[in-house]
Amino acid sequence: MRVLILGADGYLGWPTVMHLTSKGHTVAAVDNYLRRRICREENAEPLFEVPNLHQRAARWRAVSGCQVPVFIGDLMDWNFVQEVFQHFKPEAVVHYAEQPAAPYSMLNRRAATLTLQNNLLVTANIIFAVHEFCPEAQIVKIGTMGEYGTPNIDIEEGWITVDHHGRQHRFLYPRQASSLYHTTKIMDTDLLWFYVRTWNLRVTDLMQGPVYGLQTYESEQYDDLRPFFNYDELFGTVLNRFVVQAVADYPLTIYGQGGQTRGYLDINDTMNCVRLSLEKPAQKGELRIFNQFTELFSVRELAEKVQKVGRQFGLKVTLQNLKNPRKEAETHYYNPVHTGLLELGLEPHFLTDEMLAGMIEIVSTHKDNINPEIIFKGVRW
Amino acid sequence: MRVLILGADGYLGWPTVMHLTSKGHTVAAVDNYLRRRICREENAEPLFEVPNLHQRAARWRAVSGCQVPVFIGDLMDWNFVQEVFQHFKPEAVVHYAEQPAAPYSMLNRRAATLTLQNNLLVTANIIFAVHEFCPEAQIVKIGTMGEYGTPNIDIEEGWITVDHHGRQHRFLYPRQASSLYHTTKIMDTDLLWFYVRTWNLRVTDLMQGPVYGLQTYESEQYDDLRPFFNYDELFGTVLNRFVVQAVADYPLTIYGQGGQTRGYLDINDTMNCVRLSLEKPAQKGELRIFNQFTELFSVRELAEKVQKVGRQFGLKVTLQNLKNPRKEAETHYYNPVHTGLLELGLEPHFLTDEMLAGMIEIVSTHKDNINPEIIFKGVRW
Repeated sequence: MRVLILGADGYLGWPTVMHLTSKGHTVAAVDNYLRRRICREENAEPLFEVPNLHQRAARWRAVSGCQVPVFIGDLMDWNFVQEVFQHFKPEAVVHYAEQPAAPYSMLNRRAATLTLQNNLLVTANIIFAVHEFCPEAQIVKIGTMGEYGTPNIDIEEGWITVDHHGRQHRFLYPRQASSLYHTTKIMDTDLLWFYVRTWNLRVTDLMQGPVYGLQTYESEQYDDLRPFFNYDELFGTVLNRFVVQAVADYPLTIYGQGGQTRGYLDINDTMNCVRLSLEKPAQKGELRIFNQFTELFSVRELAEKVQKVGRQFGLKVTLQNLKNPRKEAETHYYNPVHTGLLELGLEPHFLTDEMLAGMIEIVSTHKDNINPEIIFKGVRW
Repeated sequence: MRVLILGADGYLGWPTVMHLTSKGHTVAAVDNYLRRRICREENAEPLFEVPNLHQRAARWRAVSGCQVPVFIGDLMDWNFVQEVFQHFKPEAVVHYAEQPAAPYSMLNRRAATLTLQNNLLVTANIIFAVHEFCPEAQIVKIGTMGEYGTPNIDIEEGWITVDHHGRQHRFLYPRQASSLYHTTKIMDTDLLWFYVRTWNLRVTDLMQGPVYGLQTYESEQYDDLRPFFNYDELFGTVLNRFVVQAVADYPLTIYGQGGQTRGYLDINDTMNCVRLSLEKPAQKGELRIFNQFTELFSVRELAEKVQKVGRQFGLKVTLQNLKNPRKEAETHYYNPVHTGLLELGLEPHFLTDEMLAGMIEIVSTHKDNINPEIIFKGVRW
């Protein structure tokens, strides 16, 4: 299948390029280095430098034989969108091309506006391009479990049938997020759902939980093919941050009581979820939604797991409860369904001690790069 | 109260300037003439020319003694937003500053992008400005009943408590609209709801039905103070269009079976709903939602009402069922609650034969201006 990967330079984008090509798909990679630019602007550089997208594609070709055309440009610019779609003629589109960080979106007005504008206008352009150039192609979009927030009822997979005064209607599951970034993902869902109904698009929207991991099977032997790995407060996800904090002898920063519970997954599972969604596509006129995670953990549980494994490596690993800088529930009901991807064939990886030990080992080789000043800045909202 | 009216040049904006000043409020008027520009670009000129906003403010001052400062600029431009808020120091903000036409938003990619970008970025800038410059000020925002679509259950006022597997949660009522324009209003609601929770804003979101009428009490004696009146397919609302079609001896264009039922209101009721919402504001941290309409009609019922009254004027008034150019349910359940504004004190005007007769009389004086070619262009979606 000819798959266009938008946001191919990112934490998930680049591993997806390698994974799909290694499974026999034909892939093109698109990015505008937005993530690199804003990480640099905010002094939130990743744990190690990664080559640029052209360099990575060349390196991947050398080791795998797979050729991946690279397009560098801004998907808010229709001229660029048109050029990419007309040139590559995709049969499917994977859409990662968004500003992906909740804390960054809450940093200031400029960051908020960038997030809103980039995420909405890029999603709209992708919809328009698929409608115009490849109406049969499925859009596989990364949403977030954060769209649902933490309601007091079970979280279904995207949809819920509401009984009210003796009548019934099936709705998009009501959404209420806890950052502007997550709110732009709700808006993406609104937009996709409208155009799915209007233009018979074929869309899979993956409500993903926080992802952890430093490498995928395809990068195991090649250090320079690993994805970005952010560990700062703005761009790092919680488990990745905790592993770096443990290695750096920096207390694990638990916001509030640490009862915030979310669904997590290994980066290898993201690869498989996206591939399975491509290989078993949604129907025309269908907005198919999966809740993409494998296990539930509270923040405190994650910290304790890292502490336990870290101590086996002789690390001190202390835990520190901080006054929560965010508006979020610190203890709450949380029971999300996640059967759809298992039914498609996902075989989950779990957060074992071995997995954590592997992460600690790799991070330890980059210990000298860790800048403790960027771990916690206290962005408040 | 010092009220900043954003989108003050529009069909509802200008009458609101006059209404609030006549009731003793201090008002400033802001617009960028976007509506005038796109009407001209699309050859969808209103039934009669209206003076520009400075001229209207001068005329209104001459007849009422009320002085209204005018700011012309684009609310997507933060420099302008900042200047207006710092200069006027509002105690409340009425937000009409959006591209308001569903068919225009479906015309082509350029119109869709303009709608998405303008409506979302302006709403975001208003939120940021209120947070920064006047955090106690209420935002009164015009949403639309179209956000709800036509679900098979009763439509509550903005919120619904869902019972699910023995537990309960109160959610924003799930929304699914039938145009891109309406979808941007859903996104506005998402955005407001997030920042209401995060920054304790004070917001009233008015889910308004289609408005009809040519004048308000304040413009009755002054023809040149009437609002814009569009009768074309892109910018005219259905009852306004039907009245013009009746006068022009153009068949009333009923899309499909004409069973599309909506809640309608007189433009004088819009004035009162907005004023009542300002005078009895939402609490801090509250997103208060009202369903703003007074009566339900199907499109066919509206056409028959216009036909009946039109014939009393000796007009022919034929009805014509057209193949529906839009994706929408032509027969559907529709039972929306609308008690909130009545409880605030709204005394509704109804769509009487006298009201329709008055509209026909005024439109007849502009009969020579009617361009039948712009009444139906068949924008499809």
